[in-house]
Amino acid sequence: MEHKGILVVVSGFAGAGKGTLMKNLIDTYDEYALSVSATSRQPRKGEVEGEHYFFKTREEFEEMIKNGELLEHAQYVGNYYGTPRAFVEEKLREGLDVILEIEVQGALQVKKLFPNSVLIFVMPPSAAELEKRLSGRGTETEEVINKRMHRAIVESAGIEKYNYVVINDDVKTCTEVLHGMIQAAKLTPKRQATFIKEVREDLRKMVKDIDD
Amino acid sequence: MEHKGILVVVSGFAGAGKGTLMKNLIDTYDEYALSVSATSRQPRKGEVEGEHYFFKTREEFEEMIKNGELLEHAQYVGNYYGTPRAFVEEKLREGLDVILEIEVQGALQVKKLFPNSVLIFVMPPSAAELEKRLSGRGTETEEVINKRMHRAIVESAGIEKYNYVVINDDVKTCTEVLHGMIQAAKLTPKRQATFIKEVREDLRKMVKDIDD
Repeated sequence: MEHKGILVVVSGFAGAGKGTLMKNLIDTYDEYALSVSATSRQPRKGEVEGEHYFFKTREEFEEMIKNGELLEHAQYVGNYYGTPRAFVEEKLREGLDVILEIEVQGALQVKKLFPNSVLIFVMPPSAAELEKRLSGRGTETEEVINKRMHRAIVESAGIEKYNYVVINDDVKTCTEVLHGMIQAAKLTPKRQATFIKEVREDLRKMVKDIDD
Repeated sequence: MEHKGILVVVSGFAGAGKGTLMKNLIDTYDEYALSVSATSRQPRKGEVEGEHYFFKTREEFEEMIKNGELLEHAQYVGNYYGTPRAFVEEKLREGLDVILEIEVQGALQVKKLFPNSVLIFVMPPSAAELEKRLSGRGTETEEVINKRMHRAIVESAGIEKYNYVVINDDVKTCTEVLHGMIQAAKLTPKRQATFIKEVREDLRKMVKDIDD
């Protein structure tokens, strides 16, 4: 069985609960590494450098793009977001599955670079539940919530390009479903080619010629 | 979320442990129904009509083929084996996932009829372990074991046509992997098309026009 890690790209509407889900996935299972994005936006209250993001100036970010240090990058509301390449490649080599939590545009860039990556779109159980979760934060104005809902419509146009859609109703169940999905993605005949070849060759060595 | 069941086709070498695995899957989770094959071969000791197989004469079996009562059928060592269609269709309508444990030839026939079915090939951890399991039954001559190993080589030619390869090392772990795989197969954007459409439409109704 081949143990090389795979790249898992997770996207979804703001308010779908991706963050909690990813944290729970990482805490529950050992085989995952969560990629930390770089961004040119200002840190929000409570955000920690290197944990939530690597915070960069626009100039630093553009330097990273120029040097090919990013796997993908996109602009969103005037700020850069991108995935540092070195961390991802290192963890994949170590055999870990690397999770990228990124926007739709970035996800499609990654799919081009890594055709074997698994793209998962996290959805809320319903539009009403999405609105409820966005309002429930209590920190946003009605206008901001409306903008996020509007953005959800725009992002939903990309769903059909993902491999899987996960409905985040209950975090524990949804984490198990995600894990099963990622494990399954590693068990295609293509990914198990070396193992299959080995079993075939061993069988040929062991079997005596038969007459029928 | 759409709840229509899916068709899961499981194949694998004799000795890979498919039977135990399927029993464990059915016993552990509620959403599965195991299809019972029809065969023209003689019942072996301990085999129960309607549980292990529906036992038919060659004439009865050929009548079933003629009447279109079988989803697939194949001949193996001079005997007919096939899947009665009515049971499968009834369980799928009820929303259960139906498991067919069948040979490679039959599996490929089913894939043509149900392109959305999931094909899973169960493998032993190694060729040596396969031989050990076949010998361990203690009921077979060396010649029969050799024939089964030979047949495994022939069947292994079809593996690349399956969606997934599962390595049956430990039954409990393997059952969980199988379950995760089948659940994942139901969560493609194609299978979730109705749910996605509903969320999109609801979002459009709820969002007020914005200026940007």
